[in-house]
Amino acid sequence: MSKLNVVVWGENVHEHRDERVREIYPEGMHAAIAQGLVEAGRDFDVSTTTLQEPEHGLTEERLAKIDVLIWWGHIAHRDVDDSVVDRVQKRVLEGMGLVILHSAHFSKIFKRLMGTSCSLSWREADEKERLWVCNPGHPIAAGIDRYFELEQEEMYGEPFAVPEPEEQVFISWFQGGEVFRSGNCYRRGNGKIFYFRPGHETYPTYYDENVRRVIANAVEWARPEGIWQDHQGCENRKEPLEPLG
Amino acid sequence: MSKLNVVVWGENVHEHRDERVREIYPEGMHAAIAQGLVEAGRDFDVSTTTLQEPEHGLTEERLAKIDVLIWWGHIAHRDVDDSVVDRVQKRVLEGMGLVILHSAHFSKIFKRLMGTSCSLSWREADEKERLWVCNPGHPIAAGIDRYFELEQEEMYGEPFAVPEPEEQVFISWFQGGEVFRSGNCYRRGNGKIFYFRPGHETYPTYYDENVRRVIANAVEWARPEGIWQDHQGCENRKEPLEPLG
Amino acid sequence: MSKLNVVVWGENVHEHRDERVREIYPEGMHAAIAQGLVEAGRDFDVSTTTLQEPEHGLTEERLAKIDVLIWWGHIAHRDVDDSVVDRVQKRVLEGMGLVILHSAHFSKIFKRLMGTSCSLSWREADEKERLWVCNPGHPIAAGIDRYFELEQEEMYGEPFAVPEPEEQVFISWFQGGEVFRSGNCYRRGNGKIFYFRPGHETYPTYYDENVRRVIANAVEWARPEGIWQDHQGCENRKEPLEPLG
Amino acid sequence: MSKLNVVVWGENVHEHRDERVREIYPEGMHAAIAQGLVEAGRDFDVSTTTLQEPEHGLTEERLAKIDVLIWWGHIAHRDVDDSVVDRVQKRVLEGMGLVILHSAHFSKIFKRLMGTSCSLSWREADEKERLWVCNPGHPIAAGIDRYFELEQEEMYGEPFAVPEPEEQVFISWFQGGEVFRSGNCYRRGNGKIFYFRPGHETYPTYYDENVRRVIANAVEWARPEGIWQDHQGCENRKEPLEPLG
Repeated sequence: MSKLNVVVWGENVHEHRDERVREIYPEGMHAAIAQGLVEAGRDFDVSTTTLQEPEHGLTEERLAKIDVLIWWGHIAHRDVDDSVVDRVQKRVLEGMGLVILHSAHFSKIFKRLMGTSCSLSWREADEKERLWVCNPGHPIAAGIDRYFELEQEEMYGEPFAVPEPEEQVFISWFQGGEVFRSGNCYRRGNGKIFYFRPGHETYPTYYDENVRRVIANAVEWARPEGIWQDHQGCENRKEPLEPLG
Repeated sequence: MSKLNVVVWGENVHEHRDERVREIYPEGMHAAIAQGLVEAGRDFDVSTTTLQEPEHGLTEERLAKIDVLIWWGHIAHRDVDDSVVDRVQKRVLEGMGLVILHSAHFSKIFKRLMGTSCSLSWREADEKERLWVCNPGHPIAAGIDRYFELEQEEMYGEPFAVPEPEEQVFISWFQGGEVFRSGNCYRRGNGKIFYFRPGHETYPTYYDENVRRVIANAVEWARPEGIWQDHQGCENRKEPLEPLG
Repeated sequence: MSKLNVVVWGENVHEHRDERVREIYPEGMHAAIAQGLVEAGRDFDVSTTTLQEPEHGLTEERLAKIDVLIWWGHIAHRDVDDSVVDRVQKRVLEGMGLVILHSAHFSKIFKRLMGTSCSLSWREADEKERLWVCNPGHPIAAGIDRYFELEQEEMYGEPFAVPEPEEQVFISWFQGGEVFRSGNCYRRGNGKIFYFRPGHETYPTYYDENVRRVIANAVEWARPEGIWQDHQGCENRKEPLEPLG
Repeated sequence: MSKLNVVVWGENVHEHRDERVREIYPEGMHAAIAQGLVEAGRDFDVSTTTLQEPEHGLTEERLAKIDVLIWWGHIAHRDVDDSVVDRVQKRVLEGMGLVILHSAHFSKIFKRLMGTSCSLSWREADEKERLWVCNPGHPIAAGIDRYFELEQEEMYGEPFAVPEPEEQVFISWFQGGEVFRSGNCYRRGNGKIFYFRPGHETYPTYYDENVRRVIANAVEWARPEGIWQDHQGCENRKEPLEPLG
């Protein structure tokens, strides 16, 4: 089996506007996420791209080769071109895996694939998050203990307005009193989608060992399997397989 | 409990272009569907609207009062204004029920809510369809025997590129050799969605007693229940419920 | 529509052994749960029965008339006769609703219907539980605000070893740091099952207004709908519907 | 990664009683199924066992090493010892994969894991079955075209009284007029379960290339992933993670 072609897409805006973010992620958040995948030592061929590149770095040609795409965005969701969103959606339906991180719950591509508002409640108060494993046999939880903690994170709270997750891997406890479905699996067309909550830009979350392990596990889980059939047009099967009348 | 406000939305194009369709449905397909709901004798307040009306008859004001919307479309999906689609989606997420009929599998609103291509295979060959009840305790199957038959229908075949149905009520057998998931339940936001396969425009399907019963049952199933909270914006819960460190 | 026949089944053991429990629930926990349903003022015909009655009060004849059964048990799960468990399971598959409360997660009937161990972690430390609504349009959450709190409860923590819930209505936050899927919907055969977490015997939980509202809502949600077909034997359909060969 | 330890469990009764079955499967059905897995040329270490062996060949020691168990049974379900069923269920919940074939829909182990009656309708009339792929990106469908056919099989018809499948891979069309959900995925505890319909004892189904491919794919899909935690007892977490009051 050849290496999985994994691309980390970064919005790459906070890093240029906010000193705190630049200090934590001097090369950009996407670079730190990619570094984590490289250091995982798995069969990944990892690269990055950002909003600022032509076609946001997601040309037809490049997308066609991606096995799993990781997406982080926050304040510039509207700047993502609809034609690129169409294209990414089409590739997911063909079989490409998609890992949606944190504030990308409100990205065009996630809302497009879910069909819902994907709203939630939130608070920035440097509080503790504890992620509990609900599904200890799930490959995305492999190597994670019963729970892991992030000392400081943004809070996200229920109701999270998404379709019922097909598999619930993590649920978060927040110090300030909320809970959140924070590791959610979906299948859309031939593609698999994992939403993973942590990763506000003002915290060093993407250097955390457990977070990195979960993202690497999610990439493996979301890899394309089975046939890649074009699943998107309607076929006129003019000839019946059985005699009529 | 007051009557359910039920609106049948009809594309209303075939009826004006195709003599065969006009003969079967002289008042329009939407009128026949609505008539079935009226004759069901349930607590429904039924009206119709069509593509041709201003804002396709789905103004903010009217939508706000609809409990369950029924949608039939086929060749004019592209003519449905995106702003109306946005509005209908928003209402479903608030809690309005939606019943999607036959070729509306390819409507903008259904694709929007599913997030997938909603493609399938098809054949127009006047063949027999037999719909089997998979879930005999489901309210949408109430009053239906083990199966019912339509002597002539268009064929729709798998794969039907939709998310895994949350409840499978019917599966169709076709004389020409195909099968199809033909009665599929989904929940999106606060709203319930039922996809029901039968109803090609060249057959008198919407006069069939079983089809009418299923549609009436689906309206009752899809009625709003519980609270209608606005579920669509993100709320900043600035104050934690518990003391932070 | 006639009144729903609702029966509250109580283990009725702690009440006789533990002074603290008897003080809170002098007539038995089942009596307090039943009282809450009566005071809800809905179309329920409520009665109770206990482990100590012949056939635990669940004779074939009585079961045949029950629309929704509510089950509380804890230390005497093993004393429930297997033949009664068989009978209750059969009735759920026919369409009877079942509401499983708190420590009945480990009852024979719940484990039978789930097929899993239904294990969890727990702690008795008089801590606060806050139940968040994940699904604000769900009828079981009707009339409940974003969350409600119980000042003192036993903790139940993930992983809760149950099949993926079909609808997640509540998730609990615990003061001591855990989370739990605390309001879970399932369908088995023609019957609906709701697991609801709160209700340790040493707390006055079943007098809480929100808890009572949820249980009453769950009874309405779990009521039988649709046809009640016997769904349990295999039928030999000797005659094909279509010609063979 | 070491080879998967795959065991085919055969009831092995028809082969000794029915001349037709013995002619088709002279070494037993389990042997033919195992041979198919060996010839698949994958990383499987395949062996067989039968009802007649002590403890049905499923001692604690042997079970502890099995990665995926395949189960075929029909007329002797009742002869399977309950203590062995307990043991197999426990192993599935720990993470062992389970592939349930054809008439094993009525086996003790499948009914135990599903919690439902698992009933269906049936007919032995040498009719054609066509299995449609609903989910072309699923690994169990890898290498299968849009559909495949079995010229002669027993008919199984809906309603199939199982919990809603978590992933629907195949649906069958039968010549005599029925449909059936014939490739169904479930997760229970840490284990994955695949029900696959074909394989009546009087037909050479387990020599069919497509059937063999599906079973081999299902074994790979059902392999244990992630951590194997003991998931079956309740843990008393006496010490809270956070300070109480």
